[in-house]
Amino acid sequence: MAKPKKTPRPKAQTPKGFRDYFGTDVTDRAEMLQAIAGVYHRYGFDALESSAVETVEALGKFLPDVDRPNEGVFAWQEEDGDWLALRYDMTAPLARVYAQHRNDLPNPYRRYTMGPVWRNEKPGPGRFRQFYQCDADTVGTASMAADAEICAMLSDTLEAVGIQRGDYVIRINNRKVLNGVMEVAGLAGDDKEAERGVVLRAIDKLDRLGPDGVRALLGEGRKDDSGDFTKGAGLGDSEADIVMGFMDAKRDAGTETVARLRELVQGSDIGAQGVAELEEIAALLDAAGYGPDRIIIDPSIVRGLGYYTGPVYEAELTFDVQNEKGQTVQFGSVAGGGRYDDLVKRFTGQEVPATGVSIGVDRLLAALRATNRIGTTEQGPVVVTVMDRARMADYQQMVAELRNAGIRAEVYLGNPKNFGNQLKYADKRNAPIAIIEGGDEKERGVVQIKDLYLGAKIAETATHEEWAGNPSQFEVPRDQMLAKVQEILNQ
Amino acid sequence: MAKPKKTPRPKAQTPKGFRDYFGTDVTDRAEMLQAIAGVYHRYGFDALESSAVETVEALGKFLPDVDRPNEGVFAWQEEDGDWLALRYDMTAPLARVYAQHRNDLPNPYRRYTMGPVWRNEKPGPGRFRQFYQCDADTVGTASMAADAEICAMLSDTLEAVGIQRGDYVIRINNRKVLNGVMEVAGLAGDDKEAERGVVLRAIDKLDRLGPDGVRALLGEGRKDDSGDFTKGAGLGDSEADIVMGFMDAKRDAGTETVARLRELVQGSDIGAQGVAELEEIAALLDAAGYGPDRIIIDPSIVRGLGYYTGPVYEAELTFDVQNEKGQTVQFGSVAGGGRYDDLVKRFTGQEVPATGVSIGVDRLLAALRATNRIGTTEQGPVVVTVMDRARMADYQQMVAELRNAGIRAEVYLGNPKNFGNQLKYADKRNAPIAIIEGGDEKERGVVQIKDLYLGAKIAETATHEEWAGNPSQFEVPRDQMLAKVQEILNQ
Repeated sequence: MAKPKKTPRPKAQTPKGFRDYFGTDVTDRAEMLQAIAGVYHRYGFDALESSAVETVEALGKFLPDVDRPNEGVFAWQEEDGDWLALRYDMTAPLARVYAQHRNDLPNPYRRYTMGPVWRNEKPGPGRFRQFYQCDADTVGTASMAADAEICAMLSDTLEAVGIQRGDYVIRINNRKVLNGVMEVAGLAGDDKEAERGVVLRAIDKLDRLGPDGVRALLGEGRKDDSGDFTKGAGLGDSEADIVMGFMDAKRDAGTETVARLRELVQGSDIGAQGVAELEEIAALLDAAGYGPDRIIIDPSIVRGLGYYTGPVYEAELTFDVQNEKGQTVQFGSVAGGGRYDDLVKRFTGQEVPATGVSIGVDRLLAALRATNRIGTTEQGPVVVTVMDRARMADYQQMVAELRNAGIRAEVYLGNPKNFGNQLKYADKRNAPIAIIEGGDEKERGVVQIKDLYLGAKIAETATHEEWAGNPSQFEVPRDQMLAKVQEILNQ
Repeated sequence: MAKPKKTPRPKAQTPKGFRDYFGTDVTDRAEMLQAIAGVYHRYGFDALESSAVETVEALGKFLPDVDRPNEGVFAWQEEDGDWLALRYDMTAPLARVYAQHRNDLPNPYRRYTMGPVWRNEKPGPGRFRQFYQCDADTVGTASMAADAEICAMLSDTLEAVGIQRGDYVIRINNRKVLNGVMEVAGLAGDDKEAERGVVLRAIDKLDRLGPDGVRALLGEGRKDDSGDFTKGAGLGDSEADIVMGFMDAKRDAGTETVARLRELVQGSDIGAQGVAELEEIAALLDAAGYGPDRIIIDPSIVRGLGYYTGPVYEAELTFDVQNEKGQTVQFGSVAGGGRYDDLVKRFTGQEVPATGVSIGVDRLLAALRATNRIGTTEQGPVVVTVMDRARMADYQQMVAELRNAGIRAEVYLGNPKNFGNQLKYADKRNAPIAIIEGGDEKERGVVQIKDLYLGAKIAETATHEEWAGNPSQFEVPRDQMLAKVQEILNQ
C-alpha cells in the first residue's frame, strides 16, 4: 500500500508584490498621517473610512488612467453571483459613498481619508500592489474657492509634517486652458480625442523627454533610445508651436502668466473660462496670504488622469536628493489632484462637482526621512537581564517600576543561560541601557546599570586603560535604579 | 435597427456585510488605538503591519475555530495559478511573518499590530465581514513571564483608554489544568477528541446556559428552547461532577483556587503542570503589583479557539449596561488570548512557543462610548457665511485667520443665495459659531458673530422678550473677530 502523502509545509512568504512593515515604518507613517489629519480637521474636513471592499459594478471595471487601461483590481465572485473587489483608489469609493449617503451628508461635503489601496498589476522593484493613499476632497460645489482652499491646505500640510517653506512649491494649472489651446491648435471635436490624449501625455512627460522629445510627440512621433517608435499627434508646425508655447507660458509673476495664457487661447471660450478660473484661484489664495513662495500658476502641469475637468494642482519638493544612479535631482512630486465633475454622475445621473487632492504617502515619508525630518531609528527599550531564572519575579518588579514611570522597558524572556546572548539581544533591540542583578548584587542590595550607547561610543575611541575603567557601567543601590536610568535617558 | 442598450447605472451601495465609518467613528477609534499603542510600546512591543493579502497556503484553508469550520476567507486566483486571500485574523499572518523573517527579528519577538481583518461569512445584524483587530504577541519564549506580562499590559491598556480600576477584571486559566481534569474524567486519548471538544464548548457557554445546561451537555445532551437537540459528551455522573467542580473552583483568594485545582487534577501530570504554571503567573503578577483587584485566576474561562495550549486569559468589563431587550447586564468580554505553541511549526517544522492577546476594537470602543469615556459628538467648524459671492476673497481671508490660530473653520462653499440654507448647513455641521459680514457690516468695518450653541439653548428656554434681545449674536469690529471667536470657544 502506498504511504499517505505528507502535506508539504506552506512557504512563509508574502505574496508577490506585497510587503510587511516593521517598527518605525509603521509608527513614522502613523505620526505623519496624524499630523496631516490635524490640518485637514482644522480646515473642516471630516474623516471617512469606507469599506476596503466594493462591488466591481460600483468601482467601474478599470482604472480611469487612460495610459494604463489594463490595470486591474483584485476581484472575486460571491456565492450569490456578485463580483466584489478591493478598492484601487479613494476617489471611486468616495463617489459611491456620496451617492449612497448624500441625504445625510452636509452639502458641500468635505472629507479626508487615509488607508491602503490595492492594484492588481505586475509587481516590480519599488512597485507594490498594496500601498497607502491619503486624500482630501470637497464634493458638491463648483466654487473655485474649494480648489483654492485645497491648495492652501496642501501647503499647510507639507509644513505641518516638516517640509520647510521654500523647500516645496504647489503648481496650479487648468484643464480648460489646455482644452482651449487644443481648440486653437485644431484638436477640438469628438473625432480628435485620441490626438488630445497623445498631446496630454506628451506634456506630462516634459520633465523626462525635454522640449525636443515633446515636440516630436506633438508632430509625427518619436523614436526612443531603444528604437521603439511612439506615434505622435500629427500636429503641423504652427499648431505644435501653440502647444509648446503653452508649456512655456510660465512667467515670474502670476498676472503675467495669466496674460500670456489669455493670448494663447484667444478665440476659445473654454480656454477663456479656464484662464478666468485660474485668475480667481490666484486672487483667493492671495487674499488668504498664500503667495508665490508657496503656490504658483504653472501651465506645464497637466496631471495624467483623464477625468480632470478644471483646475489641476501638484505639490513638488524642490530640494536635492541623490537618485539611484548617484545623480543629484530634485525630489519631485509628492501630491496632486484636481477638479472632476463627472464621477458621482455614474450613480445618480446628476452632475456633482468635486475637487480633491491625493498625497503619495510613501513618497512623502521618504522625503521626510531623506531630510531627517522624521526619526528613522527608534530608541529601544531598557533591557532588564535575567541572571537567575528563579528570581524572575524580582526582574518583573524592576521592569514594572520602569514602565510605571513611563520608560520603555523589557525583561529578557529568552533562555537566560548564556549572558552574552542577552547583551546581543539588547544590542539588536537598540536598547539604551541594560540592567544586571546577579546573586552578589542582590545580596548587597545593588544593581549594575550599563549605558550601552556610551559603551558603544567608548569602544570605538577609548584606549585600553579607559576601556578597562569601564566608565559606562554604574553600580547603584537598588532603590536608586529608576533615578539613575532616568538620568542616563535624559542626557 | 435596435437602439444600443444603455449601460444601467451602478448601484451606490456597500457590499452586503460591509460598512463605511464616518467622522468620530474613525477618529475616536484612532484615538483609542493610539493610546493602546502607547502602552504596548512602553512594554517593548514593536509595531508590525503585515500585508492584508496572504497566500491561501500560508493562511491555512480554514479558521482555527473548531466551532465554525466552514467560515471562509475572501480568496481569488492569480494569473500564475496561486490563490491569494484577505487575512481573517492577525495570528496566522504573524506566524508567517515570524517564519519568514526570524533571522532578522529579535528573539523573543514582541510585536503589536492593529488593522482590518476580513471574514467571508454570512452577514447579520451587527455582524460585519470587515472589522478591526488589535493584537499583541510574544513569539519565541515558553516563559510564563511572557503570559504574565501580557496580562499586566492588558490591565494597563484598559486603564490607559479610560476604563477605571474596579470596572474590569482580567481572568486567567490554563488549558493544561482543563486537560488534566479531562484526563481524570476519563477523556484522555486521541479517540476522545470529539468529546473533549464538546466539553470545551459546553464550559465556554456557562454564562449563557447556566450550570444545568452545561451539565446536560456534559452528559447525554441538551434540548434547547427551539426543540433542537445538541448531543453531549456522554460523561457519567461522577465524571461530570469533576468537570462541574472545575468550573466552580474559583475561591476568593488565588492561593485557595490553586489548591482546589490541584485537588481536582490529582493523578494527572499535565494537570499538575498547568496548576504550577498558574501559580507562577500569579507570583509574577503579584511581584509586579497586579493584585486580584485587577487580575484573578478563574477556572471558568476556557476561550473557544482550539489552538491554545497553556495559559488563557480574558478581560471583562464589569459595569452594567442595558442590552437590546432593556435588561441590565454586565458589559462583558473585550479582549482575550492565550498561549499557542504550534502555529509557526506549520512553516518551519520547529515548535515555536508564543502567547498573545487580541482586543475587540469595536467592543471596547462601544464600552468607552457607553460610559462617556470618549467623545461621541464632534464640535463642528466655525462657519463663515457668504453674503456676497463677489467678496469670497474676504471670507477666505477670515477663515484663513481663524485656521492660522488653530481654530477649526470653514467658509460656506454651497450656493450662497439662500441664507437660511447656510444656517441649516452650519447646524448640520454642529458648528459652534457662524460669522456674517454683509455689505452693511463691511462698510461699517464690523462682523456679526452668532453663538449657535447658546442660541440653541436660548431657543429652548427663553421668553419672547429675551429671544427678541438676541443675546447670542454679537457685533464686533472686524479686527476683533478672532478674539471674540476664541472667547466664545473657550467658555
